[in-house]
Amino acid sequence: MNNRPILGITMGDVSGIGPEIAVKSLNREEVYAEARPVIVGNADIVKRTIRLLGLDLTLHVIDSISEAKFEHGTVDVYDVSDFKAEDIEYGKVSTLGGISAYEAIEKVIDLAMNDEIDGTITGPLNKEALNLAGYHFNGHTEIYAKLTGTKKYSMMLAHGDFRIVHISTHVSLRQACDLVKKERVFEVIQIAQDACLSLGIEKPRIAVAGLNPHSGEGGLFGSEEIEEIIPAIEIARKIGLNVEGPVPPDTVYSKAIGGQYDIVVAMYHDQGHIPMKVVGFNMDKGTGKWKAVNGVNITLGLPIIRSSVDHGTAFDQAGKGTASEESMLNAISYGVNLAKARNAAKKH
Amino acid sequence: MNNRPILGITMGDVSGIGPEIAVKSLNREEVYAEARPVIVGNADIVKRTIRLLGLDLTLHVIDSISEAKFEHGTVDVYDVSDFKAEDIEYGKVSTLGGISAYEAIEKVIDLAMNDEIDGTITGPLNKEALNLAGYHFNGHTEIYAKLTGTKKYSMMLAHGDFRIVHISTHVSLRQACDLVKKERVFEVIQIAQDACLSLGIEKPRIAVAGLNPHSGEGGLFGSEEIEEIIPAIEIARKIGLNVEGPVPPDTVYSKAIGGQYDIVVAMYHDQGHIPMKVVGFNMDKGTGKWKAVNGVNITLGLPIIRSSVDHGTAFDQAGKGTASEESMLNAISYGVNLAKARNAAKKH
Repeated sequence: MNNRPILGITMGDVSGIGPEIAVKSLNREEVYAEARPVIVGNADIVKRTIRLLGLDLTLHVIDSISEAKFEHGTVDVYDVSDFKAEDIEYGKVSTLGGISAYEAIEKVIDLAMNDEIDGTITGPLNKEALNLAGYHFNGHTEIYAKLTGTKKYSMMLAHGDFRIVHISTHVSLRQACDLVKKERVFEVIQIAQDACLSLGIEKPRIAVAGLNPHSGEGGLFGSEEIEEIIPAIEIARKIGLNVEGPVPPDTVYSKAIGGQYDIVVAMYHDQGHIPMKVVGFNMDKGTGKWKAVNGVNITLGLPIIRSSVDHGTAFDQAGKGTASEESMLNAISYGVNLAKARNAAKKH
Repeated sequence: MNNRPILGITMGDVSGIGPEIAVKSLNREEVYAEARPVIVGNADIVKRTIRLLGLDLTLHVIDSISEAKFEHGTVDVYDVSDFKAEDIEYGKVSTLGGISAYEAIEKVIDLAMNDEIDGTITGPLNKEALNLAGYHFNGHTEIYAKLTGTKKYSMMLAHGDFRIVHISTHVSLRQACDLVKKERVFEVIQIAQDACLSLGIEKPRIAVAGLNPHSGEGGLFGSEEIEEIIPAIEIARKIGLNVEGPVPPDTVYSKAIGGQYDIVVAMYHDQGHIPMKVVGFNMDKGTGKWKAVNGVNITLGLPIIRSSVDHGTAFDQAGKGTASEESMLNAISYGVNLAKARNAAKKH
């Protein structure tokens, strides 16, 4: 690649705000300064979105990455699903929405696995539509793991220098407790280490959160720290990693935000998602609408790069032209950095 | 009472920063404008602390609340434990520290139960010292419940208009899952309602968080929402309460911060403590020291008022004169508002 990685961008469920934030992002000149973006998805939807937003952008439909122009002002679209935009209603769950979302993901993964693109950026999915379409996955992470044949992976959330990786994600809290096992904790510490290295952090400072309140207070309430988490930390330290923990869950995130750690290993979905969204999701007090949704969601451990927005389809906002593309821009930036690091590593 | 409630303030474990933040708070003239504060604890420790901080404050030791002056410039101390300050070393866990902390709590509760004071404000405890001294409690909340004979209570954390009450606190995460029962959820919704009313909020908007990620996605991962939480919400609505939920745990706190709710019912300790501390605990990136610890911890459901700092003893900072009294000042303000509301209610 030249210095600007080629990024395949999906629009997620096209009934939501995905098309809008993708097109708005490609209307930003600075995106083309760091990346060569191409939308992977339905071209007619992109056309309708450009018209909705009233932007001065030219649609350029391609069947092969080699045809892409990668010029600001032109939106390259690798056309995937053959349907008309008028078949998709804004803000409605539909089988077609689910099918087109899945087909775009399948294609963008395929392009990345074949090294035709350097990374993938994904828009928000609607799980119900995905299920209607017959694709029974809990989200992108699980689809990517399946289609790339990956067993050891983890969801990372990031907002600037605040990064969190998760032991588990879409399972019940009870099952999440069961999944806090020495092997898995060690695995995710390693994934966290690799992620930081690939972001150019030389000696990553990794914090491992406890599972129980106050990390269990020495076994007073909960023994997972003693039986599973501490042994995993000890193994990680033996191989030279800079790991601290178990740090009490209710202070570890404030400390990470305060610059004490490069990444935190969270013991379950909400332990990581709550602090990330408190930091990144800001609501307008007057309107009750989100005014900023900043986070980035990255699947670590895959053979390809995947960076994503950290918010949902926002069906209630779809078609209004008011959605913020901030999270998508952050996802693109993270994708660029990861792709550069990966390509640099390949050369060695 | 006159318009300024009488507040009994404990210093917590006197080996920590408790004495410092209590004395610093009473050095603030604005505190005397809204309250009549009296420290309940060891007078010699207060004397040492005034000297340490080099403040122009006069110690006034009393044996009865009626002797208190309640004037800025004079620190009224209801003397409790008879020992010398030199017997207490800064930053060290000790039996004496545990004994004196417990005796002060016992006395301040006694004064409040006898209506000699209008509310109690507590400094941070060290649980290890408390245990050394033979008092086997997990914290203030449990001591207050025991000494006031209270069965139904809940811990509220507050920072300005951001308020959280908890279904459970100091139990393992697995046990916390077991404690999510319809009766308890309904009980805490009622406690939340009463707390908001007593703070002068007319029609409280109460959010109930889910337990599982995405509130279980309709039973896909976890059934507590369907079996326990939703039924409790339905009962609460039937008696006319304005309750929303179960709201997915990873967005409910951002929405509350965004002004959508007056209070959130959190399903377990860290679900509530993580967002509160991300908001209220700010670390200095250069020094790695907390520069602000703002939250307030209130025990709801008691026959008396208890408001507290939301941070620990900070043994590493003790005796340096650098601790922030911000959380203590917030605890005093909350105590004043609760005491006024309670006294107003009594008159009716």
